[in-house]
Amino acid sequence: MSTLVLASRNQKKLGELRRILDAAGVHGLEVIGLDELAPIPESPETEPTFEGNAVGKAVDVARASGLPAVADDSGIEVDALNGMPGVLSARWSGKHGDDKANLELLLGQLGDVPDERRGAAFVCAAALVTPAGAQTVVRGEWRGSLVRHPRGANGFGYDPIFVPEGAEVTAAELSPEAKDADSHRGRALRLLLPDLRELAP
Amino acid sequence: MSTLVLASRNQKKLGELRRILDAAGVHGLEVIGLDELAPIPESPETEPTFEGNAVGKAVDVARASGLPAVADDSGIEVDALNGMPGVLSARWSGKHGDDKANLELLLGQLGDVPDERRGAAFVCAAALVTPAGAQTVVRGEWRGSLVRHPRGANGFGYDPIFVPEGAEVTAAELSPEAKDADSHRGRALRLLLPDLRELAP
Repeated sequence: MSTLVLASRNQKKLGELRRILDAAGVHGLEVIGLDELAPIPESPETEPTFEGNAVGKAVDVARASGLPAVADDSGIEVDALNGMPGVLSARWSGKHGDDKANLELLLGQLGDVPDERRGAAFVCAAALVTPAGAQTVVRGEWRGSLVRHPRGANGFGYDPIFVPEGAEVTAAELSPEAKDADSHRGRALRLLLPDLRELAP
Repeated sequence: MSTLVLASRNQKKLGELRRILDAAGVHGLEVIGLDELAPIPESPETEPTFEGNAVGKAVDVARASGLPAVADDSGIEVDALNGMPGVLSARWSGKHGDDKANLELLLGQLGDVPDERRGAAFVCAAALVTPAGAQTVVRGEWRGSLVRHPRGANGFGYDPIFVPEGAEVTAAELSPEAKDADSHRGRALRLLLPDLRELAP
């Protein structure tokens, strides 16, 4: 059994990575989160790109733990805002992690933007870094458009106003499994599978 | 004496255009504002570009008044936000015209952005449209960078956090005359001078 650290304290993210490895037939990799390690200082997410933040977090955790580490950074790129909020998605209203304030601000800013210009993409960069310093970083995208009124209770962040391409419902109205199958995070983590497979004994 | 309409109710903007015409030796053009015309419905600023909004306003006023009309649309493009707030500058916090909320939101969003990535430009598009339908649209830019704490009581909008290139003080610490000489609006209006000169008798 080899051990892989996911640079997160979020149990849902841990479950998601374990399911993806399972579904791909990658066995013998135990995935642990930051809570299962001795305290590691949180890495700041201050790079101008998702990739920079994901690699930065994975490097810090691989160094501190001596184990291979996976980290991700995600956000939403809105066409009518030139790709913002982007890396600032989680602190768009100025306060970090206030999902409601962030979503309401985005809806306000897009108040006068007509339906045909409300395209957006969820983006996730995922990085794998080994203790020896080898780095892999990938990007998953999920295209869709933004509705004017939040719908659905699943998911988090901007999910309640994001309708994926080809869907009628918002990301917050999808089941977790249906979301995994298409989402930016699911896509990015699956792109890491070839490298993760090599870590399994 | 010919008459030119500036599509604005702002006396400061009227004064600025009159000063610029005077300084350029363009005489015989009387500049009036929207308040001096019969009521004209306000044009919405919903185009994705400054130029589109400026032309839209000038077209509406030239049609309604039967006079040549000048209109402008301005905002701030922040490098670290991919050029946003841009055309949404006046309603960045979701409410139109709340200068204080807009400025505080922008400072919050840039909280983690280091000094070397705090570049920005004030941008102004100015359009001249004649009743016959001839259109000229120009753009003035004013480069600078954004400080972390507002300074100065002159100006409006984002002036208190904008330090022009080559300056030590913010745009809100400049005298109105010093601001006119360099500002995006001053530059744009001066670019219209050749066309404005042709309107003078």
